[in-house]
Amino acid sequence: MQKRARVLIDCTDEKGLVYQISKVFYDRGLNIDNNREFVDKEEGKFFMRTVVSGLFDIDELYQELTALLPTEAHIRVIEPKSKKIVILATKESHALGDILIRHEAGELDADIECVIANREILGTLVGRFDIPFIYISSDDMSRENHEKLMMDSIDKLDFDYMVLAKYMRILTPKFVKAYDQKIINIHHSFLPAFIGANPYKQAFQRGVKIIGATAHFVTDDLDEGPIIAQDVIPVNHRLGWRDMQKAGRDGEKIVLSRALALVLNDRVFINGNKTVIF
Amino acid sequence: MQKRARVLIDCTDEKGLVYQISKVFYDRGLNIDNNREFVDKEEGKFFMRTVVSGLFDIDELYQELTALLPTEAHIRVIEPKSKKIVILATKESHALGDILIRHEAGELDADIECVIANREILGTLVGRFDIPFIYISSDDMSRENHEKLMMDSIDKLDFDYMVLAKYMRILTPKFVKAYDQKIINIHHSFLPAFIGANPYKQAFQRGVKIIGATAHFVTDDLDEGPIIAQDVIPVNHRLGWRDMQKAGRDGEKIVLSRALALVLNDRVFINGNKTVIF
Amino acid sequence: MQKRARVLIDCTDEKGLVYQISKVFYDRGLNIDNNREFVDKEEGKFFMRTVVSGLFDIDELYQELTALLPTEAHIRVIEPKSKKIVILATKESHALGDILIRHEAGELDADIECVIANREILGTLVGRFDIPFIYISSDDMSRENHEKLMMDSIDKLDFDYMVLAKYMRILTPKFVKAYDQKIINIHHSFLPAFIGANPYKQAFQRGVKIIGATAHFVTDDLDEGPIIAQDVIPVNHRLGWRDMQKAGRDGEKIVLSRALALVLNDRVFINGNKTVIF
Amino acid sequence: MQKRARVLIDCTDEKGLVYQISKVFYDRGLNIDNNREFVDKEEGKFFMRTVVSGLFDIDELYQELTALLPTEAHIRVIEPKSKKIVILATKESHALGDILIRHEAGELDADIECVIANREILGTLVGRFDIPFIYISSDDMSRENHEKLMMDSIDKLDFDYMVLAKYMRILTPKFVKAYDQKIINIHHSFLPAFIGANPYKQAFQRGVKIIGATAHFVTDDLDEGPIIAQDVIPVNHRLGWRDMQKAGRDGEKIVLSRALALVLNDRVFINGNKTVIF
Repeated sequence: MQKRARVLIDCTDEKGLVYQISKVFYDRGLNIDNNREFVDKEEGKFFMRTVVSGLFDIDELYQELTALLPTEAHIRVIEPKSKKIVILATKESHALGDILIRHEAGELDADIECVIANREILGTLVGRFDIPFIYISSDDMSRENHEKLMMDSIDKLDFDYMVLAKYMRILTPKFVKAYDQKIINIHHSFLPAFIGANPYKQAFQRGVKIIGATAHFVTDDLDEGPIIAQDVIPVNHRLGWRDMQKAGRDGEKIVLSRALALVLNDRVFINGNKTVIF
Repeated sequence: MQKRARVLIDCTDEKGLVYQISKVFYDRGLNIDNNREFVDKEEGKFFMRTVVSGLFDIDELYQELTALLPTEAHIRVIEPKSKKIVILATKESHALGDILIRHEAGELDADIECVIANREILGTLVGRFDIPFIYISSDDMSRENHEKLMMDSIDKLDFDYMVLAKYMRILTPKFVKAYDQKIINIHHSFLPAFIGANPYKQAFQRGVKIIGATAHFVTDDLDEGPIIAQDVIPVNHRLGWRDMQKAGRDGEKIVLSRALALVLNDRVFINGNKTVIF
Repeated sequence: MQKRARVLIDCTDEKGLVYQISKVFYDRGLNIDNNREFVDKEEGKFFMRTVVSGLFDIDELYQELTALLPTEAHIRVIEPKSKKIVILATKESHALGDILIRHEAGELDADIECVIANREILGTLVGRFDIPFIYISSDDMSRENHEKLMMDSIDKLDFDYMVLAKYMRILTPKFVKAYDQKIINIHHSFLPAFIGANPYKQAFQRGVKIIGATAHFVTDDLDEGPIIAQDVIPVNHRLGWRDMQKAGRDGEKIVLSRALALVLNDRVFINGNKTVIF
Repeated sequence: MQKRARVLIDCTDEKGLVYQISKVFYDRGLNIDNNREFVDKEEGKFFMRTVVSGLFDIDELYQELTALLPTEAHIRVIEPKSKKIVILATKESHALGDILIRHEAGELDADIECVIANREILGTLVGRFDIPFIYISSDDMSRENHEKLMMDSIDKLDFDYMVLAKYMRILTPKFVKAYDQKIINIHHSFLPAFIGANPYKQAFQRGVKIIGATAHFVTDDLDEGPIIAQDVIPVNHRLGWRDMQKAGRDGEKIVLSRALALVLNDRVFINGNKTVIF
């Protein structure tokens, strides 16, 4: 049966990789609908994302590539279909709302399994879209205990990515490790400027002329994970920090949704603390 | 001897091109330092730019690729070296000056053979850089006669590209045809908005909130050639058209220089009335 | 009682206006919280927006300014409060959805009276927010007859502005005249480029490197009204026109919402075919 | 005699300032060609920049405003004319070159008194423009001794502003203090990200998707002075740090020149560690 797949390969760079991989596609009579490669010369790493179509079996193609490439190669052969996401939020609705509207319009390439929040207020909005909402209060609770309750709920779910849509809690290394390379966060500054709490206030006090937003994978180090997308918004002396916060929301939601689309389309490779994006 | 070359191929798309071409590189033991492809599905055209290095002969590689690929394929194997350019200008110095400064710093990837202008005023600036300046007045002269004089001078020169650095004369089809796919112009608007004369005045009168600049190859149709690069600058009601003109100059010079760098690095394919840029 | 008002004045420019107007505020003991002026020297017109606070009566202040200024002066003294809007849409949900989410979050400075659409599909989304939705099919109906039905519904409503959130119908001069200076449209191109139908297809065919969106007041001339806000998004040869359309939606919704916020905050003066924005 | 002046006032905010100041202009029969104000509510400070024209004496106007306003008020009445600048540089020519080209075109609103560099290499370029070049080597010399030599040269000059056009030396507090509020620097990052040495390498290692440039007044704290202008340039994983450095140069020179134009037009107020820009 005619089908299409995204082939993602990253491995140590060596001579002949493009030839050898394209030979596999050629020998099977597959079309290359799209092909992008990148060699990180500093790290000696090779990245390739190819969209192939034709008559083939996904497992067989995976096996053949596995046999061909070095053991350490990271190979994925992915059928394009909706992924599953879980969204964590707190009280702001702009980033969450942007995802909900895209989801409703069928433009998200993902099914939202659930929205989980440490405040109750977004329940109404989420309910409007008939999406499960779980409220797990963080009041009067240690970070560890709260995360334990969160994980109890999360681990009942089947999902590909967890999206922090302005989830205003710092995560413990334990939590991050449990969902390694699966958590996407939107930070409300142009990282690495203004790491940590209230970046808009920091930006205001510093008197910057541009503010930004950064979507990144979450790792142990606060706001230090691989960056997926960034954008900026010009500001001036007329804006107080709350005005910056308000102006910044548009950037936040657009950057998060753009990063999410890239990830859901399997366009993002994690390369150490950076990303390669095709 | 170890060398490096840029291989540029555009041809009708068909199955197996990446494989066949990469096989040529592989069989010769060449490294692929950089590789980018694009398939224009609407037009059924394939574009590929590969930087290869290793022990090889440029002519032999060209011959082998020519033998391999369909007759209509457009194949170039280019050794990276400075190209030669001729600059046409009139009276504004910002775009010309930007190129002169880059040239002086050794950052242009091109040698400036000559600057030709239909006004005398830029002679001083060009002279400061010890670059030949030819003044061919367009006063009291038909377009055809002026162009004839221009071509007499131009045709004595050996050059790869002709750069219109705010050359404020409309070119005849005859002139354009003589230097087909070699002329790069900077138009002082965000094309296709404000084609023709005084785009800043047009932009002012229309009350736009953003102005732009467009670098493009010149074809018969005024301001209609393939676009290489564009950029924009925000404006507001406080700017009169001369203020817009002044603000716009930064965009013009940066866009022209950026487009020029892309062309000089053999990163630009012309695809009908569009460009493919790697 | 302590209150605040926005004073908006536009009139023929003459010496002493700032002095005379600020004297009125001073004599009444009012604070100037914010003050911006602009003189359009070409047209000889004066624009001023002042936010004053203190003890005063809005009507009295209006009367005093009216007595002071030339007869032709256009004076508004506006208490800051939510305005009322009507939204027209067709089938795309991104611009509408962005407004709905802001409305739900209490960030819109407006109450949505009603959403009216010529297709049925957005009824579900609007219903989720408990906002009235009126479906007036345009199928098998002349433009005039359809607009008559629209106006029957619209004229039962009390509203300050009508927002065309991707309402994909051309309006007749009669309709536009009935709601003069009240209709805000988002056009999916960087006007004046690509006026009319399917601007993304036009942009794709022209091979532009940047696409845009334009929010403007609607006047008789299609896509020719005073521009309120514009923004752009970079594109490249990899995007087909549907990809551009998809990428452009983010720009459309943000530009429309930004323009709407400016209008709702009484920051926009219409100045002939342009705007002055404070 | 008909003349024009820029009146710049900053003082503690209080009721009636606009009225009182505009009354002075009105009573003298002056035209207000342009007027902008800002109140920093957090700090309780008032800023006003008015361009007035008419028959008046600059000293008299200054005296009258001084008599009217509180003692602590900072008042300037400035006739629009070319200011004098000194440029410090090291070895990169892009920012310096941009200023030289603008100067040559008569677009700078400043006379360049001298270029001083701690390397010899830029002497050729500066010499081309017949501008004095002083080379003061920093080799084998303590920062203090080198600065002493620099100051010996600088203090013989009469200038309004000192422009650090990629002067790659850290300045001592003593040097900075000597030219308080007169030194404008271009930092090759989007401050406060990547303070200090080799910001492009830092940006590359962090894997950012946008790089930037920041023009600011120099204060004691390294890269911490009031920001005048910033701009950004998108980057991706394909750029090594030297590519980022190359791409960033365009931003650096444009931002520096834009900041310089604002300062030379007396549009910039220093407000603590921030700026107010009209």
